[in-house]
Amino acid sequence: MIEEMLNNIRKEKPLIHNITNYVTVNDCANITLACGACPIMADDKEEVEEIQSICSGLNINIGTLNERTIESMFIAGKKANELSHIVTLDPVGAGASSLRTNTAKKLLKEIKFDLIKGNMSEIKTLFTGSNNTSGVDVSEIDKVKEDDIDSAVKLVKKFARQAQCIVAVTGQIDIISDGITSYIIKNGCDVMSNITGTGCMLSAMSCAYLAANQNNKLKAVASSFATMGIAGEISKEKMLKNKAGNASFRNYLIDAVYNMDLETLKKESKYECK
Amino acid sequence: MIEEMLNNIRKEKPLIHNITNYVTVNDCANITLACGACPIMADDKEEVEEIQSICSGLNINIGTLNERTIESMFIAGKKANELSHIVTLDPVGAGASSLRTNTAKKLLKEIKFDLIKGNMSEIKTLFTGSNNTSGVDVSEIDKVKEDDIDSAVKLVKKFARQAQCIVAVTGQIDIISDGITSYIIKNGCDVMSNITGTGCMLSAMSCAYLAANQNNKLKAVASSFATMGIAGEISKEKMLKNKAGNASFRNYLIDAVYNMDLETLKKESKYECK
Amino acid sequence: MIEEMLNNIRKEKPLIHNITNYVTVNDCANITLACGACPIMADDKEEVEEIQSICSGLNINIGTLNERTIESMFIAGKKANELSHIVTLDPVGAGASSLRTNTAKKLLKEIKFDLIKGNMSEIKTLFTGSNNTSGVDVSEIDKVKEDDIDSAVKLVKKFARQAQCIVAVTGQIDIISDGITSYIIKNGCDVMSNITGTGCMLSAMSCAYLAANQNNKLKAVASSFATMGIAGEISKEKMLKNKAGNASFRNYLIDAVYNMDLETLKKESKYECK
Repeated sequence: MIEEMLNNIRKEKPLIHNITNYVTVNDCANITLACGACPIMADDKEEVEEIQSICSGLNINIGTLNERTIESMFIAGKKANELSHIVTLDPVGAGASSLRTNTAKKLLKEIKFDLIKGNMSEIKTLFTGSNNTSGVDVSEIDKVKEDDIDSAVKLVKKFARQAQCIVAVTGQIDIISDGITSYIIKNGCDVMSNITGTGCMLSAMSCAYLAANQNNKLKAVASSFATMGIAGEISKEKMLKNKAGNASFRNYLIDAVYNMDLETLKKESKYECK
Repeated sequence: MIEEMLNNIRKEKPLIHNITNYVTVNDCANITLACGACPIMADDKEEVEEIQSICSGLNINIGTLNERTIESMFIAGKKANELSHIVTLDPVGAGASSLRTNTAKKLLKEIKFDLIKGNMSEIKTLFTGSNNTSGVDVSEIDKVKEDDIDSAVKLVKKFARQAQCIVAVTGQIDIISDGITSYIIKNGCDVMSNITGTGCMLSAMSCAYLAANQNNKLKAVASSFATMGIAGEISKEKMLKNKAGNASFRNYLIDAVYNMDLETLKKESKYECK
Repeated sequence: MIEEMLNNIRKEKPLIHNITNYVTVNDCANITLACGACPIMADDKEEVEEIQSICSGLNINIGTLNERTIESMFIAGKKANELSHIVTLDPVGAGASSLRTNTAKKLLKEIKFDLIKGNMSEIKTLFTGSNNTSGVDVSEIDKVKEDDIDSAVKLVKKFARQAQCIVAVTGQIDIISDGITSYIIKNGCDVMSNITGTGCMLSAMSCAYLAANQNNKLKAVASSFATMGIAGEISKEKMLKNKAGNASFRNYLIDAVYNMDLETLKKESKYECK
């Protein structure tokens, strides 16, 4: 069951190295702590190898990138590969600029990832060269809807085979595949796209889930996605009840991960495995 | 009426490019979402032109600047001008260092702005060369008080003519002028200066209001300022009621913008138009 | 009494210059405001001297450092020394990478600090060359426990003499010493290590306490630590009562500092002076 994965993080408390954007970095750190892991942020080429050496995972997020941090992403990624550590990629805004698209593609070429996680526009940009990205959100045209789940799953599965790692696409319906098995997750809520950082937090958290569950990678990612989705549902309810707004929702979301127990995760997760 | 301006953001959901400081960047992103627009943060010279091309507005905030990001401000600003996009400037701390003052002045020379927004110390530094800036807050000597509103309005109007764009001065009393017409806004509360980022959030939000209301620029800025001021009043009340403090106030403020409706905006806004 | 120290910040409102990491920078700014001081963040070599000149304190935090910001730390630190301003150091993650360790050691050599504040692993790395740092948290082996307080106090006192300034070690039990007198603070709670930034916020706040209490430096630091610890206790209670989590705890913590009064500080502080 996917709920055990959360337990393992709380037991192992993996140290996760993030090279991420400065917009949502604080939320990434706090949600990493909320799920039971420990974050460390370091993005300078002079230290990323050493920092990676003391960690068990690396999460690369290209949300605000520049020459200096791009160099560090490659150095850290190679070190992580050398040490067989977990490496995850969140290609934020791939398609929105050549710098983002090319950096993400080059990372895919030179680093072996355990997970590539993005919205459908970002993922398609990387795997098909299509480019419908509008900013950092998924384009209307790329949104996965109830009636085209099957073709979307097929697509993600194909991408996963191509990439030889787990590919996870976020959206109203999340699809996670390792090229053989696929999870379809139907948790979550609309308010999650009304705050910045839901996607970034999910990547950071997935890296922690993977690091603590190296023998169950697909389940680990599915569990991370379900955790986040359920946290979103709990937070929306709380937001509406308290007549609060998106800033409070952000806090409730991290709080809900902090308070997530296996029972809730088991009871509330809505997923299929194909 | 100024309340329609908010409606237009929620209909058009403009994508706003921010080159801003790393202190309040997360709040700027969340308040942009709260008012109904979409934020994207990108500050590297290799991508700012492309990012600006997919946006309809650019907000430049010099709160933490350096050689690399300054270069990007100019590149992005010129691109935005070329594409006739909205461009706003928040000259945070102009007067506190030559780097800030000179960068802001050079930006004014080379970029055509739709709005220059700051506290009276920052604005005076740019237009009169006076320098009373103490850090990032307005100096006591520059504060606009009830009995010198008229002369302050005259001054802001003059600056707006000089700059050939809207100039907006924040404070207990906000003054917004396009050189012909001026709005005096009396919403807001003292707690707004007990958190970091109120000014930065207001700039980011004003850029969104402008992008969605290009035929009503002065009203758009006035509406943005009234929205923020009323949100401040609502948040102070909530803070006192909940015996909370400035961190909660920050969340309430963004929440209040998220929940702002036209009726509240109409009913609670306290402004004069001269 | 240590509670007067807080009063002096609220009276003097010192302007504090922070060169800090981008993970917790927003929290550092907000807690500086919460205790009654004013923050300004600036990390570019082109402006740090001027910015420091208008401030009364400098807080250097190496949480995410790079070549550019390291250079600024030295320039700002030297300027602060020249002007006899307060300078504090938070050697975040010293021991986790050579870059951090070497930068912190070089800073200690070239800058005269008023306070060096870290967890026991970081502090030992700097003063004994031992290296048990695991990420940015204290190692299990370095944790100060109830039954070895005396030897820990002796150690911190020795470090303070060596550094010729106040050395403060955070943990379940905080130890602060100027080499002659030592304070042992027993406020605080376990949830404080479940959010990012508690340590960073405490450094920023201690710099403010020092700047407003230059004739009572040791008491100023003790008061800052007690304030933070009591705020932690209040926040944990509130978190449990509200069934909230770590994200809300972070807000409660800053709120509690904002609302801290001398009576609470006097009544709730648990400290010994040796």
